[in-house]
Amino acid sequence: MVKNLLDRVGTITLMGPGPSCVTDEVYRAMSLPTLGHMDSEFIKIMDGIKEMLQKVMATQNRLTVPISGTGSAGMETCFVNLIEPHDTVLILKNGVFGNRMFDVATRLGAEVDAVDAPWGKPIDPEMVKKQLEKKKYKIVAIVHAETSTGVRNPIQEVAKLVHQTDALYLVDAVTSLGGIPVPTDELGIDALYSGTQKCLSCPPGLSPVSFSEKAVKAITNRKTKVPNWYLDMNMIIQYWNGAKRVYHHTAPINMLYGLYQSLYLILEEGLDAVYARHMKYHNMLAQELEGIGLAMLVAPEFRLPMLNAVIVPEGVDEAKVRNDLRNTYNIEIGAGLGDLAGKIFRIGLMGHTAREENVVKVVSALKELI
Amino acid sequence: MVKNLLDRVGTITLMGPGPSCVTDEVYRAMSLPTLGHMDSEFIKIMDGIKEMLQKVMATQNRLTVPISGTGSAGMETCFVNLIEPHDTVLILKNGVFGNRMFDVATRLGAEVDAVDAPWGKPIDPEMVKKQLEKKKYKIVAIVHAETSTGVRNPIQEVAKLVHQTDALYLVDAVTSLGGIPVPTDELGIDALYSGTQKCLSCPPGLSPVSFSEKAVKAITNRKTKVPNWYLDMNMIIQYWNGAKRVYHHTAPINMLYGLYQSLYLILEEGLDAVYARHMKYHNMLAQELEGIGLAMLVAPEFRLPMLNAVIVPEGVDEAKVRNDLRNTYNIEIGAGLGDLAGKIFRIGLMGHTAREENVVKVVSALKELI
Repeated sequence: MVKNLLDRVGTITLMGPGPSCVTDEVYRAMSLPTLGHMDSEFIKIMDGIKEMLQKVMATQNRLTVPISGTGSAGMETCFVNLIEPHDTVLILKNGVFGNRMFDVATRLGAEVDAVDAPWGKPIDPEMVKKQLEKKKYKIVAIVHAETSTGVRNPIQEVAKLVHQTDALYLVDAVTSLGGIPVPTDELGIDALYSGTQKCLSCPPGLSPVSFSEKAVKAITNRKTKVPNWYLDMNMIIQYWNGAKRVYHHTAPINMLYGLYQSLYLILEEGLDAVYARHMKYHNMLAQELEGIGLAMLVAPEFRLPMLNAVIVPEGVDEAKVRNDLRNTYNIEIGAGLGDLAGKIFRIGLMGHTAREENVVKVVSALKELI
Repeated sequence: MVKNLLDRVGTITLMGPGPSCVTDEVYRAMSLPTLGHMDSEFIKIMDGIKEMLQKVMATQNRLTVPISGTGSAGMETCFVNLIEPHDTVLILKNGVFGNRMFDVATRLGAEVDAVDAPWGKPIDPEMVKKQLEKKKYKIVAIVHAETSTGVRNPIQEVAKLVHQTDALYLVDAVTSLGGIPVPTDELGIDALYSGTQKCLSCPPGLSPVSFSEKAVKAITNRKTKVPNWYLDMNMIIQYWNGAKRVYHHTAPINMLYGLYQSLYLILEEGLDAVYARHMKYHNMLAQELEGIGLAMLVAPEFRLPMLNAVIVPEGVDEAKVRNDLRNTYNIEIGAGLGDLAGKIFRIGLMGHTAREENVVKVVSALKELI
């Protein structure tokens, strides 16, 4: 036999755009003995996950469950369940993940329009208002925390505009959930999805989603079957919420243990404390980076605490800096994507990564390298 | 805080239709430190997984990768990438998973026909021959190991018939892979999918797939985009096989560690030894069950070693037997599904479950309970 490559896996401080650092408790949870997916003890764990997700998502939505795929599977789930052919969809986009939404919805046969903002700037509610006055939409979709640029989009202001229409309000909370408040019910969000590998600090593999009663009605009253068996919420709801749990697909048991434990740790610390911790170390990071002459891409009022876009100074070889960080300091940070490739570093402070020692570590390493 | 339910998770001997027993080595692999999904060390692990999957699937197919979802996501992947609206598809069905294929293909807008066999009996190649003479199909699909009934379908005989036409040959190897030979290249299988939680003895969460050059051509030459962003092989191939790995979605890192380790253990034991072990303990189980007066559903020549369908004797409360096995003996076995609900037990001997101690354990418990 060849050498087992897993023997070489060491600890890297994950300060990129996700995955984030994982606690020992979550690793331990993931290695607990696998139970059957219809086992009564496992069903109690599923119920615990749903309850804890409701708390972290600030929602009473009964249909609040993790999808058996990574964050993009959550995006696919929300769109494929809500869109029927020729439905009108408005995507507000200012980065990679807004673009991805546009692609997903288009592939599903929707009539898709967009309101754009430059990468690094937030969506402008005025432009959304104008577009909503022009045309009637079934769905309006926005990315809360645009991971590709570090911008926090104004989901509250947009919520008000959307609710002056009949549209369903769809929000990508992949990077925001567990790092800044995601007030699902307060803002009347109808469909929300997230990922486990960002501020929930669990390895990647699951995508928590939540649907309002209005969204559930749209799904159950579809004229056509959901063109995706694996992600059809009409069946998934029977397994997760049915009085008699009906087998759909075999749930990823050990990943769900990991999610259970990561939600447990967040609620044990307290949501407010968790949000304050993200903000505290974000502020420390921004200040320290400015102290060594680095500038942030995004204006202070729209910055995400968990994803810090830092402008690569003139003359600096950004790929070399990232490689040196990885190979000499065992720190991973992210590169820019799309229009911002080569122009920014993306430094994540997500979940368990958002700690003082990590801020100190990355800033002192960058100071030596730049 | 409420009590942490994970504290109650104990070891259950998993002898149902999957998930199967997991080795300590695989649990340990899953709790290794998470690496970034673009990390060069992780990419080596991905390459190792592809190579080992090729060996277990007996294929040289370059596009042999695990999909980031459970077995049914693999089914969805094969159909959604190969089907364009109005394509003709023939499904050979004799159980739950054949029915699921029919549903998946129908939702994707294909024109779907079926050749049926009674549950508990194999597909009849004569009937397939007649249907293929009547109509031209783009895809012919069959389940190798029908987990709902314990039937091994004649994929070799059907292969010959399919290859007299231009059709793509699609095979569900969810339960067969790693338990009986799956000669992908020898049979000219064009699209194959499996799951990790059966004979690979890894927790559920991933679905290995493999596509022949002919299938890859069909995918890359599509007239329409794949109506599923998350499972679009045109993009997934860039992440798994591209000279420059292009980010698609964040891979489920720790699940992939588990798959790596489980494939490593299978190849270390040797594929022939693994198949022989499955057959040996299947024969022992069938003999011992007959010794205590229980009969098998399937005729000997079509029985699967890893999934044993056992007829519930007249007057026995099958649900009570399963509950007692679970609660008194810590053994999970499966119930019948669909037409066979209440009529059979399904006893799995998949992967690490296929050991003498487990055969002895389940037979002696059943002897006391029936």
